[in-house]
Amino acid sequence: MKIALLPGDGIGPEVMDEARRVLDALRLPGLTLFEGDVGAAAYRRHGRPLPEETLKMARKVDAVLMGAVGDPSCDTLERHLRPEQAILGLRKELGLFANLRPASVFEGLEHLSPLKPNAARKLDMLIVRELTGDVYFGDKGRREAADGTHEGWDIMSYSETEVRRIAHTAFRAAKQSGQRLTSVDKANVLETSQLWRDTVIEVAKDYPDVALDHIYVDNAAMQLVRAPEQFGVVLTGNLFGDILSDLASACVGSIGLMASASLGERQTDYGTFGLYEPIHGSAPDIAGQDLANPLAMILSLAMLLRHSLGRTEEAEWVEGAVQRALAAGALGRDLGGNAGTREIGDAVLAQL
Amino acid sequence: MKIALLPGDGIGPEVMDEARRVLDALRLPGLTLFEGDVGAAAYRRHGRPLPEETLKMARKVDAVLMGAVGDPSCDTLERHLRPEQAILGLRKELGLFANLRPASVFEGLEHLSPLKPNAARKLDMLIVRELTGDVYFGDKGRREAADGTHEGWDIMSYSETEVRRIAHTAFRAAKQSGQRLTSVDKANVLETSQLWRDTVIEVAKDYPDVALDHIYVDNAAMQLVRAPEQFGVVLTGNLFGDILSDLASACVGSIGLMASASLGERQTDYGTFGLYEPIHGSAPDIAGQDLANPLAMILSLAMLLRHSLGRTEEAEWVEGAVQRALAAGALGRDLGGNAGTREIGDAVLAQL
Ligand SMILES: CC(C)[C@H](C(=O)O)[C@@H](O)C(=O)O
Ligand SMILES: CC(C)[C@H](C(=O)O)[C@@H](O)C(=O)O
Repeated sequence: MKIALLPGDGIGPEVMDEARRVLDALRLPGLTLFEGDVGAAAYRRHGRPLPEETLKMARKVDAVLMGAVGDPSCDTLERHLRPEQAILGLRKELGLFANLRPASVFEGLEHLSPLKPNAARKLDMLIVRELTGDVYFGDKGRREAADGTHEGWDIMSYSETEVRRIAHTAFRAAKQSGQRLTSVDKANVLETSQLWRDTVIEVAKDYPDVALDHIYVDNAAMQLVRAPEQFGVVLTGNLFGDILSDLASACVGSIGLMASASLGERQTDYGTFGLYEPIHGSAPDIAGQDLANPLAMILSLAMLLRHSLGRTEEAEWVEGAVQRALAAGALGRDLGGNAGTREIGDAVLAQL
Repeated sequence: MKIALLPGDGIGPEVMDEARRVLDALRLPGLTLFEGDVGAAAYRRHGRPLPEETLKMARKVDAVLMGAVGDPSCDTLERHLRPEQAILGLRKELGLFANLRPASVFEGLEHLSPLKPNAARKLDMLIVRELTGDVYFGDKGRREAADGTHEGWDIMSYSETEVRRIAHTAFRAAKQSGQRLTSVDKANVLETSQLWRDTVIEVAKDYPDVALDHIYVDNAAMQLVRAPEQFGVVLTGNLFGDILSDLASACVGSIGLMASASLGERQTDYGTFGLYEPIHGSAPDIAGQDLANPLAMILSLAMLLRHSLGRTEEAEWVEGAVQRALAAGALGRDLGGNAGTREIGDAVLAQL
């Protein structure tokens, strides 16, 4: 079993340290760890945010665990040199088309949600976001507009193949959890969305036992705060998923606990190849001060164990240890407590 | 002074009736009203959702007051015959590039917000959404993808001229209200957004006294529920504005009270030409049963009086009457009461 660790920028390295301690404690036999550069850290060392070495390493492992990328000092660089390009590059190059983001409120932490307790308690969804298509990866550029001024343009598109693939991922998840599937689009305006909707309806025929709804993206945003209990598995394209998954995380109210998996098509000997990362960013303002909450990183590790290494049992151990550590008071500043990064890591290890 | 009334579908006609009673009660001298067909109602009578007659009428008046369009029986029609196309057609044909959607919680109705009272109370923003450009109006279609399957595509774009125009609208609003301006984009991924951001920064030079922020759309959705008090005037493109303005309305919690103005460039003798409509839809399930809340429609009329007819005083009368009617208990089912459409109209008239 091979895992690549990419700590990245800001608080990335320190939360990665804690995840690594948890991983070590599991003593998985035959596990080899690699470490690579990514983001601003990679730009400084190699002149580019996603070095060829890192990509090569990612291609030969079973899973990638990533901290965070992003550094304000890079904001003025040309677009292709900015840290975020490393994320986009990894997704595209590794074919990580399926982004899974669970959003549910942790027991005992309902009060952190900005929503009223009644709604917050019922929030329990999985967002399945397409990650390698849409307006993110279409041609784009500047040209002269009809009136002689400049114009920025981007092509949005989805093919049936792309939609089918991610739809199957979402339908399988819905079938497994017994939840309904809600597909998000803007088919009243966009041809890309109309094809999306038509294709999802086609794929639905293979899953007669999964209840399927279609909802416009504007209404989805509205319903997500109004009545989140309506949603089980939510299927979206890349752009709408970017917005809605952050919105869902905000509704949960504890971004320092939100993990994500980005899965590819490649099957490893133990599961599906994937990249795992917390959804919080690099938080440069608190980096290096033992203030970051490492739990989202540790929960990302749990997702890795489950999806890429087929280690369901270990994944549940880690998730259980996190739950118990939280219950025992290992709350970082983001959760209204004052436990430090290392202290929270210790608490999880103690519970493991 | 000339106003065109377009009642449209579902609850449109009945809420329009109440707005019309309020308008009559104001006895504006020299006012001529016209009435036209739009939406499914127009499709049934003329074979198209936006008949030439309606467009002609809209072109010769100072303002258009619209009820709602949309009818489930039209869902299977070809796209260009569906009721929503009437809205898109009116916006484009009349050059209604600036959509203004105020979102703030009404005094005494904080409890309707799905957000906790603390955050809800501080929600007070104006969303300024560009309405005639972006991926809404770019070329679109289907074509063969590289792998031989079908692909849906849409072109997203903004020219400097388009961005400048809406940016000025937003900066003027921010200057007038003394609020900060937050411009929303996805400049880390989209060229359209990068041009948007560059242009907004240019325009900002004309408004040195307005504080300006830029925020990515995913983060904007997050912050909107997390800490809505950060926002004053929010400037967005057409697509992001569609999502964020519905989200903001949902955070307010009383969609039956949300009005909107869509302004064009044409100056009338009294103000700016515009179209005004409640943001709730046609609600076919409750149509014709005296269950709809007419207040959003009446508040849209107040916006019309202010922006297109220069009747600030009358606008304030209407808004004040609505406030007092609410305080006196004229609450529709959507606000937790049981007042009927006509009854709420009566209550406003009584307060006027
Ligand atoms: C950093 C950015 C390019 C990225 C995205 O938009 O996909 C991020 O917001 C995310 O959701 O992972
Ligand atoms: C009906 C639809 C085309 C429209 C839009 O997307 O603009 C609506 O959602 C709105 O916000 O007015």
